[in-house]
Amino acid sequence: MTRSEIIAEPQKQEIIVTRVFDAPRELVFRMYSDSKAIPKWWGPKYLTTVVEKMEVRKGGIWRFIQRDADGNVHAFNGVYHDCVPPEKLVRTYEYEGNPGKVMLETVTLEALQEGRTKLTAHTVFQTMEARNWMLRNGAEKGASEGMDRFAELLATLR
Amino acid sequence: MTRSEIIAEPQKQEIIVTRVFDAPRELVFRMYSDSKAIPKWWGPKYLTTVVEKMEVRKGGIWRFIQRDADGNVHAFNGVYHDCVPPEKLVRTYEYEGNPGKVMLETVTLEALQEGRTKLTAHTVFQTMEARNWMLRNGAEKGASEGMDRFAELLATLR
Repeated sequence: MTRSEIIAEPQKQEIIVTRVFDAPRELVFRMYSDSKAIPKWWGPKYLTTVVEKMEVRKGGIWRFIQRDADGNVHAFNGVYHDCVPPEKLVRTYEYEGNPGKVMLETVTLEALQEGRTKLTAHTVFQTMEARNWMLRNGAEKGASEGMDRFAELLATLR
Repeated sequence: MTRSEIIAEPQKQEIIVTRVFDAPRELVFRMYSDSKAIPKWWGPKYLTTVVEKMEVRKGGIWRFIQRDADGNVHAFNGVYHDCVPPEKLVRTYEYEGNPGKVMLETVTLEALQEGRTKLTAHTVFQTMEARNWMLRNGAEKGASEGMDRFAELLATLR
């Protein structure tokens, strides 16, 4: 299995996550934007994810709620700015545990040879402090474990 | 009349516009988020602005269309991530003449002494290139002339 690459340069208020999947772009897009699939892969494995809302269209609202075994709750929400199947999703993103710190996430899917697909999730933050807060609070673990789980899910569909 | 301050640091993918208005915060927020008021102040004076859509609530869509005397058209659209009267509006922002380059704009209003209000419009861009493109293509003129016109509109309401 390939690994995720996570780039967070010191002076840029952004995080870039890339991953190559051994699955065609249409399938990757469909699963990535499927509310029923989200609980199977979104975020680290020790959290249980419930999709409260996921309206994948311009102006649509999304909200995911995660719980750990001790009952701690982490909720995330935002709105979709754009949805261009099978190549792009643009949405805002807010962790309710750090309210008012809004991110803009652009996910692009690029078709590679041999039916593989490269995913790039590019997130910009309102401030460097907000970016660094996310890095200190599990963004890398969440992203890389989520990408691993998403790859495993795609492998079951081939 | 006070002037607008426009900050665009070389290494930061953002533009910050601030302006102090001689009007109370509730009035500034109400006029700023009023679709009927937008054509009276939004952008430079030589353009005529029509509000096609302006749903000021989470998930609401906005789209403004500007025309010059020669019939050239400039359209802008996005979605609202947050609306917290009278203190904050967060929305995405896209100039259709440069499609796919999405910005995240956070407008905050701070009540000052003597019934004045400080507006801060903070825009982050997906890339430095996109930020610099906006600066080369009239962002400063549009913002400062728009803020002047907004101050003039507020002055008529006292």
